[in-house]
Amino acid sequence: MNIGLFGIGTIGSGVFEQINEEFGNFSESTKIPAKITKVLDKDTTKKADNVIITNNPSDILDDESIEIIISLMGGIDFEYEQIKNALNKGKHVVTANKAIIGEHLAELTELAKKNNVMFRYEASVGGGIPIIETLEKQSRNNEISEIKGILNGTSNYILTKMINERASFENTLKEAQVIGFAEANPDSDLNGDDVARKIAILSSLAYKTPINSSEISIRGIQGITQADITDIIRMGYNIKHVAQSKNENNSISISVEPVLVKKNDIYSSVNNEFNIVTLIGDKTGELQLYGKGAGKDATANAVVQDVLDIIEALDNGYSIDLPEFTNVNELEDNNRFEGNYYLRINKKNSKGLSLEKVLDILGNYVEPEHINSTDDYTFIYTKETNSDRFKQLIDELDLEPDDFFYARILD
Amino acid sequence: MNIGLFGIGTIGSGVFEQINEEFGNFSESTKIPAKITKVLDKDTTKKADNVIITNNPSDILDDESIEIIISLMGGIDFEYEQIKNALNKGKHVVTANKAIIGEHLAELTELAKKNNVMFRYEASVGGGIPIIETLEKQSRNNEISEIKGILNGTSNYILTKMINERASFENTLKEAQVIGFAEANPDSDLNGDDVARKIAILSSLAYKTPINSSEISIRGIQGITQADITDIIRMGYNIKHVAQSKNENNSISISVEPVLVKKNDIYSSVNNEFNIVTLIGDKTGELQLYGKGAGKDATANAVVQDVLDIIEALDNGYSIDLPEFTNVNELEDNNRFEGNYYLRINKKNSKGLSLEKVLDILGNYVEPEHINSTDDYTFIYTKETNSDRFKQLIDELDLEPDDFFYARILD
Repeated sequence: MNIGLFGIGTIGSGVFEQINEEFGNFSESTKIPAKITKVLDKDTTKKADNVIITNNPSDILDDESIEIIISLMGGIDFEYEQIKNALNKGKHVVTANKAIIGEHLAELTELAKKNNVMFRYEASVGGGIPIIETLEKQSRNNEISEIKGILNGTSNYILTKMINERASFENTLKEAQVIGFAEANPDSDLNGDDVARKIAILSSLAYKTPINSSEISIRGIQGITQADITDIIRMGYNIKHVAQSKNENNSISISVEPVLVKKNDIYSSVNNEFNIVTLIGDKTGELQLYGKGAGKDATANAVVQDVLDIIEALDNGYSIDLPEFTNVNELEDNNRFEGNYYLRINKKNSKGLSLEKVLDILGNYVEPEHINSTDDYTFIYTKETNSDRFKQLIDELDLEPDDFFYARILD
Repeated sequence: MNIGLFGIGTIGSGVFEQINEEFGNFSESTKIPAKITKVLDKDTTKKADNVIITNNPSDILDDESIEIIISLMGGIDFEYEQIKNALNKGKHVVTANKAIIGEHLAELTELAKKNNVMFRYEASVGGGIPIIETLEKQSRNNEISEIKGILNGTSNYILTKMINERASFENTLKEAQVIGFAEANPDSDLNGDDVARKIAILSSLAYKTPINSSEISIRGIQGITQADITDIIRMGYNIKHVAQSKNENNSISISVEPVLVKKNDIYSSVNNEFNIVTLIGDKTGELQLYGKGAGKDATANAVVQDVLDIIEALDNGYSIDLPEFTNVNELEDNNRFEGNYYLRINKKNSKGLSLEKVLDILGNYVEPEHINSTDDYTFIYTKETNSDRFKQLIDELDLEPDDFFYARILD
């Protein structure tokens, strides 16, 4: 069986090596020999042994000897069109493109069903962690009501360095870019866009409801300063960029935001490029998977696992079930996330708000539980409230972004 | 399709509820209706709606309408015979019995192959954690060279309480027995027998080598005192009962022993009845799964997941591959586990060894790095050595069990 590979960048070359070089023709695990015979890439001078590199998708899509397309280009519009073309040509598709899956999962699933082909995207969430396979299997008998996770290796790497080395956000980001842990344009990794795509994919599958990542409200990690880090460490916390999603009575809440976690929480031990995903099921309670959220070999392995699943299904004459999106649950505002809150206010702020005035306004929404104060900052730890009320407080304070920072405290 | 259930104790009744009561006939996830129609139990007066309870295995084994046997009796010899009988009668078998799987995995796998039936045992390791499924899938492309885990809910519950409440081993055990977290005879949970069975199963699958749990040398948690707890906490450690297994150049080392872990290690945050398993793969690096290691609903869910896999395979006309045990690697002594060590020596000891004398003997094996001393105890933290050398040191000290305690420090 022949495979076509769209894109031979970092992950693509890892997949190429695992399938064609290291793995030979999969003879150990399946009876069907399979190899990548054609590669699509803008740069046709790239090296890949014994295969044809083309920049024309039709060279691959019209090749009837190719039954599986692995799509790892990493773009949006062009790749989206090529995935649709591949499905329409009756080819099985494996992709790692979370931007496309995060927005078009239900549509592409329908297209795969219409064309009677398999469609897999394990590597789109959590890098090397087999979370999609696990979620699909568990969902059969273990109803998932909540998902939580650290889902971006770049933002987690930066937060880990800010905590461990007490460096500023800007310096840590620059260093991460130098060593290749952050891209030249790291916006989507830091502002929550990338995480929103991943939690949208997991939530769509768990709640059988099509969720478009663009509908999820996000907060990034850019506003976190060393003043915050110093105070939260003193209070026994760590800070992590966490996605959370709940389904209660068919009403779905999703948040992507920096949160404080206790030092002895497992989430506090998830460092650098590692990711973690927590599923809460009615049978299992908490079920957590932890592993590398990024990196060539780990992510390529997730892609190859999908390819192996497809080959094994073809080998045995069946087709891997595609998910159903039969529910049309509401995506609510995230007022269902309750918790204590952390709020830092700069004493010199654009509106000249005194601590007295801040506490006065705060008192209308939530009681403070603990207040620390330095020459430059006030740090307030509140009693329990919910994200809607806290957002109203922030709106009423009406400060400039540089004047404050806040985060929910995770239970 | 009809299912026979062997044993309707805690897990058995959970499986019965999930399959027959809650789940109906699996109509949502598979096209084949399936239900438990007959139950084998010593006590035929037990309640289970709409099924026949018998104490005669033949009533079920000779029933040709029954295609799957779920075996959850929890014994050894009798259940082992019934599982073999079921396989020989051409029935697919699902079991949670780690004592049987830990000793007879390769043999029962051969018997299942001979009879052309499926054989699954997800619930035998890690309760509700889908570790066997994950290990099998990963092994196809991600070569596992090391496995590590906290694999017993009872011993982890006791250690968690000893750490958090500073209670003695004896009192904590009594309390655990009262609330049902430890059995009346908790020996196999505390001395490492149960953990050895689980790491034997995982290692056999990962290294494709039949490993009998009885060949694994074990150390339990019974020798840990509050004197140890106080000192290791002061030094920034936690203590956990950990199984570890390595395959280096086809030579396998397995250890089951109490180890010290740093407070910020994920293992330190695995508390109470929770389990964790770490797989180290050549593609993924560290991959960890965390969840409830015990409990009716979580363990029953793992059993039902196996049943669903079998029904889906029958539904689609294929058979789930059984593992190959094609390697015959040596199970070495555990000299490949290297690390710093913790050693507590009572000042009043049976041999009247002075601290000077202890350090004199110790010096022949490993350098001390840090020594704490109280009126009653000496606590020594050593530099790096390996388990063989440290064991030789312990042998040379030749003290009574109550006079000392030691544990490797996990990196």
